Amino acid sequence: MANTRFSYVKNFEEDPHLLFDCWTVIRVDGRSFKNFSDRHNFRKPNEPRALSLINAAACHVMSKFGDILLAYGHSDEYSFLLKKNSRMYNRRQQKILSSIVSLFSSAYCYYWKDFFPDQPMLSIPSFDGRTIVYPSYRSVVDYFSWRHADCHINNQYNTCFWSLVLNGKTHDEAYTWLKGTQKMEKNEYLFSTCGINYNSLPNSFKKGTTLVRVEDGVVLDFNDPDKMDENVQATIVSSSNPPISLMIDRHELDQLESKLCDITNDLGIKILHCDIIKQTFWDVVGHMIS
Amino acid sequence: MANTRFSYVKNFEEDPHLLFDCWTVIRVDGRSFKNFSDRHNFRKPNEPRALSLINAAACHVMSKFGDILLAYGHSDEYSFLLKKNSRMYNRRQQKILSSIVSLFSSAYCYYWKDFFPDQPMLSIPSFDGRTIVYPSYRSVVDYFSWRHADCHINNQYNTCFWSLVLNGKTHDEAYTWLKGTQKMEKNEYLFSTCGINYNSLPNSFKKGTTLVRVEDGVVLDFNDPDKMDENVQATIVSSSNPPISLMIDRHELDQLESKLCDITNDLGIKILHCDIIKQTFWDVVGHMIS
Amino acid sequence: MANTRFSYVKNFEEDPHLLFDCWTVIRVDGRSFKNFSDRHNFRKPNEPRALSLINAAACHVMSKFGDILLAYGHSDEYSFLLKKNSRMYNRRQQKILSSIVSLFSSAYCYYWKDFFPDQPMLSIPSFDGRTIVYPSYRSVVDYFSWRHADCHINNQYNTCFWSLVLNGKTHDEAYTWLKGTQKMEKNEYLFSTCGINYNSLPNSFKKGTTLVRVEDGVVLDFNDPDKMDENVQATIVSSSNPPISLMIDRHELDQLESKLCDITNDLGIKILHCDIIKQTFWDVVGHMIS
Amino acid sequence: MANTRFSYVKNFEEDPHLLFDCWTVIRVDGRSFKNFSDRHNFRKPNEPRALSLINAAACHVMSKFGDILLAYGHSDEYSFLLKKNSRMYNRRQQKILSSIVSLFSSAYCYYWKDFFPDQPMLSIPSFDGRTIVYPSYRSVVDYFSWRHADCHINNQYNTCFWSLVLNGKTHDEAYTWLKGTQKMEKNEYLFSTCGINYNSLPNSFKKGTTLVRVEDGVVLDFNDPDKMDENVQATIVSSSNPPISLMIDRHELDQLESKLCDITNDLGIKILHCDIIKQTFWDVVGHMIS
Repeated sequence: MANTRFSYVKNFEEDPHLLFDCWTVIRVDGRSFKNFSDRHNFRKPNEPRALSLINAAACHVMSKFGDILLAYGHSDEYSFLLKKNSRMYNRRQQKILSSIVSLFSSAYCYYWKDFFPDQPMLSIPSFDGRTIVYPSYRSVVDYFSWRHADCHINNQYNTCFWSLVLNGKTHDEAYTWLKGTQKMEKNEYLFSTCGINYNSLPNSFKKGTTLVRVEDGVVLDFNDPDKMDENVQATIVSSSNPPISLMIDRHELDQLESKLCDITNDLGIKILHCDIIKQTFWDVVGHMIS
Repeated sequence: MANTRFSYVKNFEEDPHLLFDCWTVIRVDGRSFKNFSDRHNFRKPNEPRALSLINAAACHVMSKFGDILLAYGHSDEYSFLLKKNSRMYNRRQQKILSSIVSLFSSAYCYYWKDFFPDQPMLSIPSFDGRTIVYPSYRSVVDYFSWRHADCHINNQYNTCFWSLVLNGKTHDEAYTWLKGTQKMEKNEYLFSTCGINYNSLPNSFKKGTTLVRVEDGVVLDFNDPDKMDENVQATIVSSSNPPISLMIDRHELDQLESKLCDITNDLGIKILHCDIIKQTFWDVVGHMIS
Repeated sequence: MANTRFSYVKNFEEDPHLLFDCWTVIRVDGRSFKNFSDRHNFRKPNEPRALSLINAAACHVMSKFGDILLAYGHSDEYSFLLKKNSRMYNRRQQKILSSIVSLFSSAYCYYWKDFFPDQPMLSIPSFDGRTIVYPSYRSVVDYFSWRHADCHINNQYNTCFWSLVLNGKTHDEAYTWLKGTQKMEKNEYLFSTCGINYNSLPNSFKKGTTLVRVEDGVVLDFNDPDKMDENVQATIVSSSNPPISLMIDRHELDQLESKLCDITNDLGIKILHCDIIKQTFWDVVGHMIS
Repeated sequence: MANTRFSYVKNFEEDPHLLFDCWTVIRVDGRSFKNFSDRHNFRKPNEPRALSLINAAACHVMSKFGDILLAYGHSDEYSFLLKKNSRMYNRRQQKILSSIVSLFSSAYCYYWKDFFPDQPMLSIPSFDGRTIVYPSYRSVVDYFSWRHADCHINNQYNTCFWSLVLNGKTHDEAYTWLKGTQKMEKNEYLFSTCGINYNSLPNSFKKGTTLVRVEDGVVLDFNDPDKMDENVQATIVSSSNPPISLMIDRHELDQLESKLCDITNDLGIKILHCDIIKQTFWDVVGHMIS
């Protein structure tokens, strides 16, 4: 930069460092994504094309920053784990945060056309982000378990909420009914009124998406077989606005997953939809992290 | 967020506040933009389509964050000024930084097709960002003067560099020649070998772009008449790679500026290419800021 | 420091800088000073020997750090104002904070014997501290006005509280009575039951202590004449524990003030007990600060 | 605090938190202690009364802050280790730093008379301080090893330096001689010219002082027998200014250690002069920390 009599203003810049010997999580979150998803007619409670798109964006970020060991996302959020003692940008917090959020946002826009070929982007999506520093392996595991539990609880709640709406309740009535109901009651309602066994919903909805680097000799085979029932789907898609779709055609899911793999092929990243609270997951993945 | 036994990990989050009673500058900068511009065959030393695109992205950001008073950009960087004592996101630094960088990045991708209709995006652009806090009006003025001086010095250097290359020098030879030459020599070289009067280059190249909100009763008429000579242009476009174009057809510039205005119309933002080091600029704009 | 294989631990040190172009206030506050004052039988509501002692400590700090422009204290707290753009310790926040708190604490102990010649120190006093950064002259003035208002409100409350106790109320009864009483009622109570005109209490109690550097040609003559009534004092000292003394012998105050001046003589610091909310104070002092 | 129109200034206060799940070290260091020690005629290279005094101050600090697990000091510095996840002051960094530095400084002044009964304090000592956050047990161990290595290297250097001065060299000559000499040469010089076996110096000089809390059932018996040779001492005390005393009368040391124990008795703190780089130390102490 040019050295002029104005250059003193550079002295006001301060970029603190992420503490050494710690893992860093960068979490990005959709800003006003309710508006964005309504505008683009995303199906409720889950729009698989949008989930595949955000997964593609996250894969791209992970492929560009080699120090990201693991990523986990659901809904409109994604968390990236930087390796302990990463030297990326000399651990400057603002530089790391802004670079990752920026690339994630750009990639989301870039890949839009691949997952919404018939739907032009009508408004501009954006994300906020934060960095969080974790000093212990235990807290890293618990962080991802926290987001995983959040995925599960939100998805169950939303699935139930939209099935109530599908069955004629207003949003307020659905909200009131759900306050105070327990997990079991929610599942029973789903089954009795919609004929849906919650457990048979796609794993990508129930468990979110986990990205890990493929390593030689490490078998990353955590994915339970998807138990989704192909026959139910036809009866439970509404034509309301937003369109409600409690289950998705397995064929559509497979096509999206296949398109995602085409894009992320050669990146050396494995895409999982599995339970990451379980110890068995960390037994295999842990050695890459600690 | 769900309240589980993992929720304690949330305690590790810390988002410091921007000091009260201060202006905040958020500066975004292209990451590896040399690669990005080469990949997309940007003309040297200036690609007017890319400049119009980044101006569109900045206008979009400014339209979405009402507390941004002023923005200034050139090349692949843009600086946004948040008003003193803005209450945006309760002054949380990470939230503000990440939201602006993200929206800027998305908008850059979104508007690409408008300015490069015949050129698909081949790689994914991204930006880093930083927040800087300025306690005094003086330092705010000096900050923008600093960036303006940077624009001028870089543009003069680059114009000379690429004219040397156009005249057969290698990059290394051009670099060596420029080390040690003063401003006057640079201008003389431009004139004697390329017939270019530096002062007749477009103001958008020499002075960058300033965005201000239009206010009733304030006449923002800082733009000098553009003195560019339309006849020179034809002789100095090379077919090399990267293509060198020391001057641009006024017609193309006008079309781009017009397209930009179509996009930013109704946003209440005035687009200027003027000298912001001059006191006259701050005499008019200052009252909006301080 | 020696360069060994352990030296890497030094990399974990981080000392952020105080923002440029700002004033810094360092405020020190007594830790558990209720215990300390009870242990040493401090008179209530004010112990003039303790006030003189803390003033001596503050003068010492101010004499050692030339960038301190102004200090203000009352009760067991003191605030020091560092000049804008001070380069002390390269503006390292921890270094500045710790050095000032340390010297203040040591000086408090060192001068104890001068103000409590017959009372050995029985426990070890200590202070906490904080740094606060102010970007505007207005907020600096308001900071000191804030502490001054605090002094006034606390002193009036405490004077009333201890007069209630002196008149036979328990602490709880006094506390309950004071909740809900306005300033006027408090003053009336003081006058009707104790014969005390609040305004006639010593200025050092009502207004705290302000330290300013003496400058040639600047007359720092803010002190109102002390209106304290010498005759009242004898009747209102109790022999209770803690001893209550609503007024102090002017002779004692003069002696303490004189001892303080002996100590701080030649330091070039003026000791004031005046109203620093008034504009007239800042009219004179302001030019030293801004 | 009183709620007035000035109270807004409180919003400028910010006290960041020490990261959870980490150990914190607070290190205090003498400010301008060369002047202070010269002023009080401290013997060179070690003044055992000053060492005992600083040990007393550190014991006092440790006794008042129950979350301090371990302390280590030598010369004019002391490091305190806060337990992982200490909740002291809600982990507010400035509050913790300032409180510890303040109490340390006050205690140093308070106990002065016990160790320098015939020498009034002539100037006011002070210390700076810093907080350092360590995320791993390994880095905590390495931190204390680093300070221990520093003690050793400095003490050996200083012992040699002052023996050169004792033998007639100027300070500059001594400094020049020492540049470039290795550890072995230093020891040989000490032995050949002063008849001093470096290993026979008191452990409190060579190894500094470590404070640990006494726990039931844990035998803290790390102290090697002190091998100091009582007969040498008489011949090597100079009457120069500063007085040089390469060895100290064991009787004096014992008396000081005994006085220190009188003061710290009942505090439940064990005072050690042992090698804390050795694994055997951490084998015993480690379980208290991790």
